[in-house]
Amino acid sequence: MTDLLWQKTGTRTDERIMRFLAGDDVVLDREFLLCDIEASKAHAGGLANIGILTTGERDALVRELDGLADDFRAGRFVLDDRYEDGHSAIEARLTERLGDAGRKVHTGRSRNDQVLVATRLWLKERLGELSAHCVEAARVCLARAAGEALPLPGYTHLQRAVVSSTALWFAGFAEAFIDDACRARDTRAWIDANPLGTAAGYGVNLPLDRAHTTAALGFARLQVNPVYAQLSRGKFEIAALDALAGALLDLRRLAWDLSLFTTAEFGFVRLPAEYTTGSSIMPNKRNPDAVELMRASYACVAAARTEVEQLLSLPSGYQRDLQLSKGAIFHGFHHGLGALALLPDLLARLEWNAPAMRAAIEPAMYSTDVAIEQAAAGVPFREAYRAAAAAADEAGQGRTPEASLAARTSPGASGDLRLAELNARLREFLP
Amino acid sequence: MTDLLWQKTGTRTDERIMRFLAGDDVVLDREFLLCDIEASKAHAGGLANIGILTTGERDALVRELDGLADDFRAGRFVLDDRYEDGHSAIEARLTERLGDAGRKVHTGRSRNDQVLVATRLWLKERLGELSAHCVEAARVCLARAAGEALPLPGYTHLQRAVVSSTALWFAGFAEAFIDDACRARDTRAWIDANPLGTAAGYGVNLPLDRAHTTAALGFARLQVNPVYAQLSRGKFEIAALDALAGALLDLRRLAWDLSLFTTAEFGFVRLPAEYTTGSSIMPNKRNPDAVELMRASYACVAAARTEVEQLLSLPSGYQRDLQLSKGAIFHGFHHGLGALALLPDLLARLEWNAPAMRAAIEPAMYSTDVAIEQAAAGVPFREAYRAAAAAADEAGQGRTPEASLAARTSPGASGDLRLAELNARLREFLP
Amino acid sequence: MTDLLWQKTGTRTDERIMRFLAGDDVVLDREFLLCDIEASKAHAGGLANIGILTTGERDALVRELDGLADDFRAGRFVLDDRYEDGHSAIEARLTERLGDAGRKVHTGRSRNDQVLVATRLWLKERLGELSAHCVEAARVCLARAAGEALPLPGYTHLQRAVVSSTALWFAGFAEAFIDDACRARDTRAWIDANPLGTAAGYGVNLPLDRAHTTAALGFARLQVNPVYAQLSRGKFEIAALDALAGALLDLRRLAWDLSLFTTAEFGFVRLPAEYTTGSSIMPNKRNPDAVELMRASYACVAAARTEVEQLLSLPSGYQRDLQLSKGAIFHGFHHGLGALALLPDLLARLEWNAPAMRAAIEPAMYSTDVAIEQAAAGVPFREAYRAAAAAADEAGQGRTPEASLAARTSPGASGDLRLAELNARLREFLP
Amino acid sequence: MTDLLWQKTGTRTDERIMRFLAGDDVVLDREFLLCDIEASKAHAGGLANIGILTTGERDALVRELDGLADDFRAGRFVLDDRYEDGHSAIEARLTERLGDAGRKVHTGRSRNDQVLVATRLWLKERLGELSAHCVEAARVCLARAAGEALPLPGYTHLQRAVVSSTALWFAGFAEAFIDDACRARDTRAWIDANPLGTAAGYGVNLPLDRAHTTAALGFARLQVNPVYAQLSRGKFEIAALDALAGALLDLRRLAWDLSLFTTAEFGFVRLPAEYTTGSSIMPNKRNPDAVELMRASYACVAAARTEVEQLLSLPSGYQRDLQLSKGAIFHGFHHGLGALALLPDLLARLEWNAPAMRAAIEPAMYSTDVAIEQAAAGVPFREAYRAAAAAADEAGQGRTPEASLAARTSPGASGDLRLAELNARLREFLP
Repeated sequence: MTDLLWQKTGTRTDERIMRFLAGDDVVLDREFLLCDIEASKAHAGGLANIGILTTGERDALVRELDGLADDFRAGRFVLDDRYEDGHSAIEARLTERLGDAGRKVHTGRSRNDQVLVATRLWLKERLGELSAHCVEAARVCLARAAGEALPLPGYTHLQRAVVSSTALWFAGFAEAFIDDACRARDTRAWIDANPLGTAAGYGVNLPLDRAHTTAALGFARLQVNPVYAQLSRGKFEIAALDALAGALLDLRRLAWDLSLFTTAEFGFVRLPAEYTTGSSIMPNKRNPDAVELMRASYACVAAARTEVEQLLSLPSGYQRDLQLSKGAIFHGFHHGLGALALLPDLLARLEWNAPAMRAAIEPAMYSTDVAIEQAAAGVPFREAYRAAAAAADEAGQGRTPEASLAARTSPGASGDLRLAELNARLREFLP
Repeated sequence: MTDLLWQKTGTRTDERIMRFLAGDDVVLDREFLLCDIEASKAHAGGLANIGILTTGERDALVRELDGLADDFRAGRFVLDDRYEDGHSAIEARLTERLGDAGRKVHTGRSRNDQVLVATRLWLKERLGELSAHCVEAARVCLARAAGEALPLPGYTHLQRAVVSSTALWFAGFAEAFIDDACRARDTRAWIDANPLGTAAGYGVNLPLDRAHTTAALGFARLQVNPVYAQLSRGKFEIAALDALAGALLDLRRLAWDLSLFTTAEFGFVRLPAEYTTGSSIMPNKRNPDAVELMRASYACVAAARTEVEQLLSLPSGYQRDLQLSKGAIFHGFHHGLGALALLPDLLARLEWNAPAMRAAIEPAMYSTDVAIEQAAAGVPFREAYRAAAAAADEAGQGRTPEASLAARTSPGASGDLRLAELNARLREFLP
Repeated sequence: MTDLLWQKTGTRTDERIMRFLAGDDVVLDREFLLCDIEASKAHAGGLANIGILTTGERDALVRELDGLADDFRAGRFVLDDRYEDGHSAIEARLTERLGDAGRKVHTGRSRNDQVLVATRLWLKERLGELSAHCVEAARVCLARAAGEALPLPGYTHLQRAVVSSTALWFAGFAEAFIDDACRARDTRAWIDANPLGTAAGYGVNLPLDRAHTTAALGFARLQVNPVYAQLSRGKFEIAALDALAGALLDLRRLAWDLSLFTTAEFGFVRLPAEYTTGSSIMPNKRNPDAVELMRASYACVAAARTEVEQLLSLPSGYQRDLQLSKGAIFHGFHHGLGALALLPDLLARLEWNAPAMRAAIEPAMYSTDVAIEQAAAGVPFREAYRAAAAAADEAGQGRTPEASLAARTSPGASGDLRLAELNARLREFLP
Repeated sequence: MTDLLWQKTGTRTDERIMRFLAGDDVVLDREFLLCDIEASKAHAGGLANIGILTTGERDALVRELDGLADDFRAGRFVLDDRYEDGHSAIEARLTERLGDAGRKVHTGRSRNDQVLVATRLWLKERLGELSAHCVEAARVCLARAAGEALPLPGYTHLQRAVVSSTALWFAGFAEAFIDDACRARDTRAWIDANPLGTAAGYGVNLPLDRAHTTAALGFARLQVNPVYAQLSRGKFEIAALDALAGALLDLRRLAWDLSLFTTAEFGFVRLPAEYTTGSSIMPNKRNPDAVELMRASYACVAAARTEVEQLLSLPSGYQRDLQLSKGAIFHGFHHGLGALALLPDLLARLEWNAPAMRAAIEPAMYSTDVAIEQAAAGVPFREAYRAAAAAADEAGQGRTPEASLAARTSPGASGDLRLAELNARLREFLP
């Protein structure tokens, strides 16, 4: 390993302990390195503005940082356990290439605000992707809701209840993912505050140009207080995971529907073949593995949230426990976004089995319609309900799924889907 | 128990099973009853608008509902296990008093959207309280940050790091609670959509006047799709608990600080005597129980969130599992808001022990200042750092905590607290 | 409220804070009061053995404690917020009735070990019930596995895979619940250690007769170290909840099967009518609510575990946070055991729909049999697999479910169920 | 990628979907590969016993499997994304080297029981390590408890309560880790059942020699029922994580003590220098990072448990969701055992600061002693308590920590530590 930034002469180290301390930290830092480099460029700019660096030093640092980013993207620079962490690697490279300018770059900065700002930029990117995936899923859902309205049994308690339709189902998930996109955007705005310049949680005796770094990094505002900057570590990570988990909750229920609808017994949906796999022992199987893994991805997000949450029972101020939050958010977003990314294609291409769906609509499913018609005609509903219950099996006489759907005119229901309202909300998110 | 709404002739029931099905549901419904009554009034208004009720019936229903609310508040009406749930109790009362008008009130409504709308109104109230408590905590913090700036050791890893101040500490928690209030407000806005009129998740064959109920109940918008209304059950509850948990995370860290600061070893803080208790065996003890219970309250919120989250691995459509979400949110908000409610008074009245705090500031805590001064004078920071490390114990020569605090001029730090910026954000929340 | 045990002259109290400190503690203590009384009797016996009490005082205390237990069971003594907690209530009653003997009962005891021992006795009772419920569920499953072996489709990925049977299904859950009973017993044995006599975590300057209390309360061993007695608070609660959660995991999967099997689409199972309910709006519905609530009960156990777990990020020694563990274990065991208690009756009475199950067994489900027959005849399995895959639809020619089940002779499978082995394990738990 | 075991002619695949399906599965399988190879050897032996393989084929398979294990350990065989998973890799290698014998090895086996048995062997190894680490930690604690008994303040609510000692503290954690070792052993015994031979959850039409594989792999018993074998996936993983979490709970509280005791304010403990690190900005810092990461490791175990738990809300039978359990247990055990592995060395080498500890023992800490002395002399305890409370500050007159510790003769307390009893329990675990 390269020299440790903080090492004093004569400190002993022990390899087993060093490995425990390091964990997989430096490998995780690969994920955050480009964000760290961006923030380092902004920091150098700020230092030049207050005279700590000459403009020549700043320009050299920016150039080397850009070069490091290029090398990293191209695989010419590999971040590995030669370094204590990504922060040390950046300073080491700058010092190696630029000498004193490199030794100056950490002025007024701690690894504490350095990791805060890199993580925050990373979270903003991920929340942007979350929003984009939700928007795309909603877009596909709305397009399919507009294009087809096949009768589908509507269930409560997994029991056949009333007539529903594929359009109602798609529009329901469209509204879900619009809300999820909205929450991702709100959360991104909520964390959009610049922690760079708060050092180790108590500020520094330099008039750092935090307005510059805020603007240069595209933050909406300053995270003002250094004590709070530290308090927000983990807290903001959890908020980001909360937004992700909300979308994954919807994906989990959607995947559950598909898991059910692709059983032989329901038989309502055919998945594209690429989303299925076979068995090592049973020659007859085609399994909807992709749908099951989408459903399961919620678990990764929940685990990530638990991991961060469990770290945070601490007094204020940085404590090393917080380091583990990096691996957690990486795990959660990797799996969660991975599942959401496939969803639009899957939704666009799934095929309904209209005859099977129609066959599953049984006469008693019209009895709510009957009772309400009676109520509309003046019979007190509770009486109409009891009469309809007694004659549930005859409820279907002279009725069709299509007519039942068309008559369901309560706003939002199959006879009045209000797709225009949903499209209007969605358009707010489109470029 | 009164007759079951859905009971057909000749159905057998078994008391042990009925008790399991009911759980403590009817007792929990006490918490939500006033919201349910409000929504029932709006529903009656909507039914009158589309001709299902006469205006006379509507007015009678509204009057009886108001009377029921009065009776309930005054303890004259007790919701207990004579009823299957609060919804049934309302319909039973209206039917008993008004006959057919009561039998009509459930037209076009299911207990599914009835509980959705009551819960949503309840959650909006709770999020309003959450925001108010956070605002009040932030207000007290900002007032104290403006009024006193006693030197306080700043810690990282619970090790003495640099000089901090009580003003910096208070301002840090102020910014935390402003963010928490902001999130509570965002979450309230995000869930502010009317589910009433979606029935059991598939709408009904009546042109329900959902615009009326949306306006009457003060919702910002319609929750359009009935399938989504059902999908949002639990999902919105979790989002509300997420907002609560975020504030409790900050409270937990604050309580940890106070727990530490009130030890004999730190000795930085004296709590008002009312916040402490004694021991049954040890005559000498005064224990900061209130602070410990504030810290522990996070656990109740986390438990509530877990409970709802574990219910939601389901296909779409209502399933009885969701009933358990009511007890969970009640538990979480009861404990979480209870802890936050005490916080402003505690913050306003805690006393700092200035001499103890000053005594804990040791010379080496100035060495970061020294290194940065050198850096400002042109020595590359990494060199200045090593020099300061070698002479850490002499770092305090000629230095005072006050001077160190004043020199910390990075924006947000002790020399430039930016209380005006924080106050400006806070003012957005004040009436 | 009665005088506080620890109150010194002149301490101020504030009702709002007192209410926060108390929470619902005294109400929860009702659940633990009989255990507390038992332990108090044992403690009095121990004090008499070392001369702190006369035998007359001990006998009077035991008599009054028995009387209090009787009064409590009969509703003549109500534990409510006149008392700080159940411990105080006991001491107050004894002092009121016996004077100095009552004032002596707390000698050498703290509320810390008092609540520890009461909770431990309570947990041992609950784990005993858990074991008993699991044993009874396993017994019913084994009886049904022995009595009927109807062909049932076997699923993987919810896709039809190979022929299974109701006997295999019942025997599978039998083995699950035997394991669960085993774990409950192991956990009960693991926590079966007496904490009484450890006071506030540091012992006392009295040679307490802990051997006496250990024997009198039926503990298997002493929990030796007072520091550990405190460390075990929460830790043992979690272990007990872990055992409960294990059983509920199995119940959740069983309930999922029933939820699926009672859909119209599967149609494999009819539940006893008492386990179903109706809808407030849809006259045609019969819903398997009991099964859904059984499934959902896992959430309560998970929530309880989360609540205790979140309390435990603490240094050693008692801290007030731990008080919240009482409500959590009560919530978890109340719901978890409630669901398990209904299970044996439900299992005993559920009816299979043999024709529907048989109709769901399609020809391709024999193709694994075909491939393995070929493999047994010498064709390399991977070749046989590919051949069988190509001819999956003809796999059923000349085959019946019964023959397929009988030929499945791998130990434990349908042709060799090994019920005798499972019954032998179960018998270890029967009286 | 090599050919997929289950691929039929003409199936389309899509790289993006394949990547999602694969996840990091094949990389994780590296961790389990040696267990998989062992189980494959046992399976080959069983197949030979029932005539599916010749002894020559079996011997060749065993030889190649041993060779593969050697190559894997030596880095000559790398498991990477050329393979769908570790199972496929093994079969591919055997087929490549041995032809038909390789094509036969999967006879009567599914990847479902293959992964079950490999994971179970792996969990048994990890639980063995868990037990060993706990035993070693307890051994060090007992040695130190026997060797030194320095006075240490005893805390409740983090407030000074009564006199404690380092011996009492060490003995307390010794008993904790003995219990943890005991639980690890119980859990290992509980899961020690052979799932190999249950195929995809429904057995096969071959009289597999499961007695052979049970003995060859060192299992204590057969896991009888194939449906249960599938139900145990995830359930056993959680039980193993529960045992690990129990130990980590104790480690977390121990680490909290050390975090507190190494503050300047307490100043009771000095850690070996190797367990501390420095700061990138503050020259004066030495931080107890190792202790903080030990404390934080609980979060990884909790996250792993959450991840598995969230997967298990499923009907019976294998579903692809369960695949994610592999990464979770690897994550949890990697971090959890890593932290425990360092603990014995840390405990052996930490140094107490006796003068600081003694200085923190203040007179009022003797007042419980005083009250109990009075009680022993006949004063009713509650009276003695009030008297001692009034005179708490004089409680120390004529008293020393040593005398207070010696007089604490309640069994397990400082005057009667019962180390022999604890050593006797520990010896059960030693070879």
